[in-house]
Amino acid sequence: MRAAVLFGPDDLRVVDKPVPAPAAGEVLVKVAMCGTCGTDLKLQTHPFPNQPPFGQFTPGHEWTGTVAALGETVDELAIGDRVAIEAHRGCGRCDNCVLGMYTACLNYGNVAKGHRASGMSVDGGFAEFALHHVSSLYRLPDNLTWEDAVLVTTAGTSLYGLDAIGGYVAGQSVAIVGPGPVGLMTTQACKALGADPVVLLGTRRSRLELGQRLGADCTIDVRSEDPVVAVRRITHGLGADVVIEASGAMSAPQQAVEMVKRGGKILFLGFYPAPVTFDLSAAIRDDVTLYTTRGEGAGAVRRALSLAAQGRIRGRELVTHRFGLEQIQEAFRVVREREGDPIKVVIVP
Amino acid sequence: MRAAVLFGPDDLRVVDKPVPAPAAGEVLVKVAMCGTCGTDLKLQTHPFPNQPPFGQFTPGHEWTGTVAALGETVDELAIGDRVAIEAHRGCGRCDNCVLGMYTACLNYGNVAKGHRASGMSVDGGFAEFALHHVSSLYRLPDNLTWEDAVLVTTAGTSLYGLDAIGGYVAGQSVAIVGPGPVGLMTTQACKALGADPVVLLGTRRSRLELGQRLGADCTIDVRSEDPVVAVRRITHGLGADVVIEASGAMSAPQQAVEMVKRGGKILFLGFYPAPVTFDLSAAIRDDVTLYTTRGEGAGAVRRALSLAAQGRIRGRELVTHRFGLEQIQEAFRVVREREGDPIKVVIVP
Amino acid sequence: MRAAVLFGPDDLRVVDKPVPAPAAGEVLVKVAMCGTCGTDLKLQTHPFPNQPPFGQFTPGHEWTGTVAALGETVDELAIGDRVAIEAHRGCGRCDNCVLGMYTACLNYGNVAKGHRASGMSVDGGFAEFALHHVSSLYRLPDNLTWEDAVLVTTAGTSLYGLDAIGGYVAGQSVAIVGPGPVGLMTTQACKALGADPVVLLGTRRSRLELGQRLGADCTIDVRSEDPVVAVRRITHGLGADVVIEASGAMSAPQQAVEMVKRGGKILFLGFYPAPVTFDLSAAIRDDVTLYTTRGEGAGAVRRALSLAAQGRIRGRELVTHRFGLEQIQEAFRVVREREGDPIKVVIVP
Amino acid sequence: MRAAVLFGPDDLRVVDKPVPAPAAGEVLVKVAMCGTCGTDLKLQTHPFPNQPPFGQFTPGHEWTGTVAALGETVDELAIGDRVAIEAHRGCGRCDNCVLGMYTACLNYGNVAKGHRASGMSVDGGFAEFALHHVSSLYRLPDNLTWEDAVLVTTAGTSLYGLDAIGGYVAGQSVAIVGPGPVGLMTTQACKALGADPVVLLGTRRSRLELGQRLGADCTIDVRSEDPVVAVRRITHGLGADVVIEASGAMSAPQQAVEMVKRGGKILFLGFYPAPVTFDLSAAIRDDVTLYTTRGEGAGAVRRALSLAAQGRIRGRELVTHRFGLEQIQEAFRVVREREGDPIKVVIVP
Repeated sequence: MRAAVLFGPDDLRVVDKPVPAPAAGEVLVKVAMCGTCGTDLKLQTHPFPNQPPFGQFTPGHEWTGTVAALGETVDELAIGDRVAIEAHRGCGRCDNCVLGMYTACLNYGNVAKGHRASGMSVDGGFAEFALHHVSSLYRLPDNLTWEDAVLVTTAGTSLYGLDAIGGYVAGQSVAIVGPGPVGLMTTQACKALGADPVVLLGTRRSRLELGQRLGADCTIDVRSEDPVVAVRRITHGLGADVVIEASGAMSAPQQAVEMVKRGGKILFLGFYPAPVTFDLSAAIRDDVTLYTTRGEGAGAVRRALSLAAQGRIRGRELVTHRFGLEQIQEAFRVVREREGDPIKVVIVP
Repeated sequence: MRAAVLFGPDDLRVVDKPVPAPAAGEVLVKVAMCGTCGTDLKLQTHPFPNQPPFGQFTPGHEWTGTVAALGETVDELAIGDRVAIEAHRGCGRCDNCVLGMYTACLNYGNVAKGHRASGMSVDGGFAEFALHHVSSLYRLPDNLTWEDAVLVTTAGTSLYGLDAIGGYVAGQSVAIVGPGPVGLMTTQACKALGADPVVLLGTRRSRLELGQRLGADCTIDVRSEDPVVAVRRITHGLGADVVIEASGAMSAPQQAVEMVKRGGKILFLGFYPAPVTFDLSAAIRDDVTLYTTRGEGAGAVRRALSLAAQGRIRGRELVTHRFGLEQIQEAFRVVREREGDPIKVVIVP
Repeated sequence: MRAAVLFGPDDLRVVDKPVPAPAAGEVLVKVAMCGTCGTDLKLQTHPFPNQPPFGQFTPGHEWTGTVAALGETVDELAIGDRVAIEAHRGCGRCDNCVLGMYTACLNYGNVAKGHRASGMSVDGGFAEFALHHVSSLYRLPDNLTWEDAVLVTTAGTSLYGLDAIGGYVAGQSVAIVGPGPVGLMTTQACKALGADPVVLLGTRRSRLELGQRLGADCTIDVRSEDPVVAVRRITHGLGADVVIEASGAMSAPQQAVEMVKRGGKILFLGFYPAPVTFDLSAAIRDDVTLYTTRGEGAGAVRRALSLAAQGRIRGRELVTHRFGLEQIQEAFRVVREREGDPIKVVIVP
Repeated sequence: MRAAVLFGPDDLRVVDKPVPAPAAGEVLVKVAMCGTCGTDLKLQTHPFPNQPPFGQFTPGHEWTGTVAALGETVDELAIGDRVAIEAHRGCGRCDNCVLGMYTACLNYGNVAKGHRASGMSVDGGFAEFALHHVSSLYRLPDNLTWEDAVLVTTAGTSLYGLDAIGGYVAGQSVAIVGPGPVGLMTTQACKALGADPVVLLGTRRSRLELGQRLGADCTIDVRSEDPVVAVRRITHGLGADVVIEASGAMSAPQQAVEMVKRGGKILFLGFYPAPVTFDLSAAIRDDVTLYTTRGEGAGAVRRALSLAAQGRIRGRELVTHRFGLEQIQEAFRVVREREGDPIKVVIVP
């Protein structure tokens, strides 16, 4: 099969590779589409701790496709089924996995013990075929497209975060900072769960407009209005019940502390390029809890698929660019240089 | 003012009564509408333990109206504001109230210490005016009608129950037994929170059809199909993630245990006329938790109002009969005899 | 090796059997001791749904011993390590296991997919050697005896239940009904977590005296004093914050509802011989939640071992009878006939 | 009566003042002892936002004493009862108080609506008499001293924090940074709840030795050993399940992130003199939640009193200095200059 392989820092090339065979509990999937993400850029430049070596590794952790072969014991799916994925499969035996916290698996990167993070610690979806464990695959409802399926993985990040904060945001005010793919899917997820108002804050007008079309009750261009002032204004001076930080901007944590309600919650879904500085005492004085989640744990993808099938969250509108597998370098150039304001750039192998 | 007063068992008469004056923290409301409920029938026949004496007591706990006067310190509302209510106000000083569990107030019925259950332990809304504590009143969004407001109190019961089970039912299967007002509002609440599928089970075709119009994904006429078989069929043999019992039928607890998924949750929102018999061991063997809630605690009415304002739950379609205050005896006759298949019968004082 | 094998209803015989070999992720343990339990009696008479066939099955689910051999990938333990166990290992791939609810595994009994309940759905510890998955084994602290290790599995049941109700009982009143092994370990667990007072209720004086030695703040002989009256008296009329039912008596659920505080919790750890009858409406009226758990999930055995190593819970005092493996029939006769008031009868292979 | 009054920045003088009269729901207490705390120093120099004006305000929020008079409706206590306190009484009517989050009251400082933070927004305990709401007073068990009662308020801070993180730390590893009064009471609280090991980290040998006497399983002098290395060593490389930051040191948040287990929890109980800088992305990557609490909410003082009465936490050993009310300036000089390594300096009016 054809597959992108990372041969060195920022040296991703499409080469021939044998189609892998599914072991017990595993499934071989013919990849239909694979999303690109900021993490893909980072790990091409600076390999992650548990990343496979140069010359072997195929990244890609937001993929979808059709079941091509089943490993032993797999009867949950059938050949021909369309599936969406979550990236992480825990070892199933460490203290954290036993408790269901598999995105925090203590055997992260230990393939022998069963852990795998598709496209991060094992081969992923920038290829014609990809393997995954059956527990990380979900049958795709008929009314969803491949684009929806790619974004369902992103929505899984949103929902895992919302699960961490309790999952019950109906009637609560939510401020979402950063209208990237995570922020936009989170906006929809919050509306799907009944949050109101959902305020989306960002710097790019086009993104904010898309956010509005996707359900945000109000959008704030933070270059025109101070974000803290705006959120306090909209929430009658109280601050938002929940602030969700999805921008990764260095100033965002301080703003989050200032725009959250007393006794409220801040959820961090983005990553920062450096240590951040903020007034933690203000959070302490106000009984504010700071939640973080990584990836799409706790069955969040299953829930995301359901919301997508119900028409409550839509992924396809976020896909702005499509490239064939052989054009993957060009695809990442577009991602890196933000050419044409890409939101989600996908590879169609 | 004119007010219904209970003069003896099943002896409710409309008489003249002075308009009460709001104490500090209280609000006087001109009642626009007050719903009737099974509880109203019960307490007319057999007074509840903390019910005011015959000759004084005005029942009615599902009311709505316009602010007419404010007690000292009240600035959360203004005269002329339309409000919805929750029935319970805790004492604010017992162990349970301090923890926010005010529907389980340990000073239940102790008016001196501040507890009040409107229309149950103090005068309620079958009158031209009613008093309530400001913390139990919520400003009614402009796009809601009085009918919506009456049913918002019912929806508060649904949401308080959903809060008890975690509030995060997105993508989960829910079976709701009993398409009365609570069951119908719960159906909508579950859909508003993203549950799927929501299965509504009942005996009356008209109710099930209404449930379908209000969002149920499927409805089961339990006179045509065994409810357990139906729920297991719809959930691919697994049982429902959540079963919500709102029928009060003596056979319902056993059915709930049989139709719930391993590790699932049962929420009891109805009351039974007698002790129930069911296979508790089956629940234990399957790690099933049995939740109960009473009333509309934990700020559930605030959330319900938000969902109603968002158009996610609709109350007005449940109002089947309207009576003036002077016709209240006729109204309760209709409720008691189920004449014309009443769902929610309201009094318009 | 020598092993007890169930050849038919109540026909348990000790025979020769090959020592099993550990597969990947599995560990072979030389059994040092195996407790007997009411469940062992039941499954000998009426096989459980997923029980291996007559002529093959070796029961025993409360065992402990020394690591004898390691399957592939196991480096968490070393040969010679002493270990305690929990009975259940989930499939690790169903919806429930993924969320950490492995005692409610949806593939219960499906060995091919990885589920095993030692001594229930696969061979257990009434043998010289037993296999288990590494995730179900815990290294035994040096200061614990085999007797402690056997009872740690029982204490895991207590702690899993306490986990289900929130785990935070410090300063709360707890009433425990039934001073059997589960009730006695739960008494200690509640005291270890700071509950106060812990009231133990039962019918046998000797058991209550042992409960007192193990930390119960007060004990009630329910043949001398009505249990509901007693608990209400001790809790100043409020009822217990938590009622834990570990007796399996048919009258216990009703008593639990009557002795629990408004807004309180009931935890069911016992099984009933038939459907139970109780006033569920009383629980609903009082916002009472009814929790159930099965087995020792959520890493409860790890916590139990820690409490035992800290000297907070003691198992050895519960072991009243010891038998060699060849005397297993005599052992079960003693259990069945309650000869000599046995608390925990153990087999020493 | 005699009372300390703040007449200007750092100008606290003892003067005559009328004994206040308890309103409905309030209790007058003859103060037996009042602890000093870093917060007292801060608010003397820089008044807090809701602090009463200079010339009127009596600080002191860690007091205890004997009931001297009862306001209307108070029957929970009797004259002559010894009581411990919590500082905060919520308004009982804002969104947060209704949910039981009264330390995050949205009407903070609004006395008319019922909020009071004793010694912060209303007069406190550096006086012969003090008022408080009955819901903030707890009867002192007979076996506790005034010193214990003062420290029970501090232990309430510990337990409220532990409640926020779930309250169920039995068998979990906990690292506590900062052996001041909060750190030392938290050490005891963690042991009382069964945590193991509890590692106490600090810079002062005497404090660490006291921590050890009070139950810490190990203590780390961070001037001899790197705290992160030490905690990772003790926890077999995994990091602590829970890190509790009670030092307020600017470097502590970064260390907390580095010493916590993947999927673990950090609880912040201290305040920082300035915005802090730390690698928040590391927390995000590891699914770490950052909890904060303020004061002694959620009935934590009730639980603390129970643990103290059980002998599980001891306060009196922390009281190093005693001063009469007239010597309050000298007392605060000792606190400010840390003369004689004071832990808890108390005023005995």
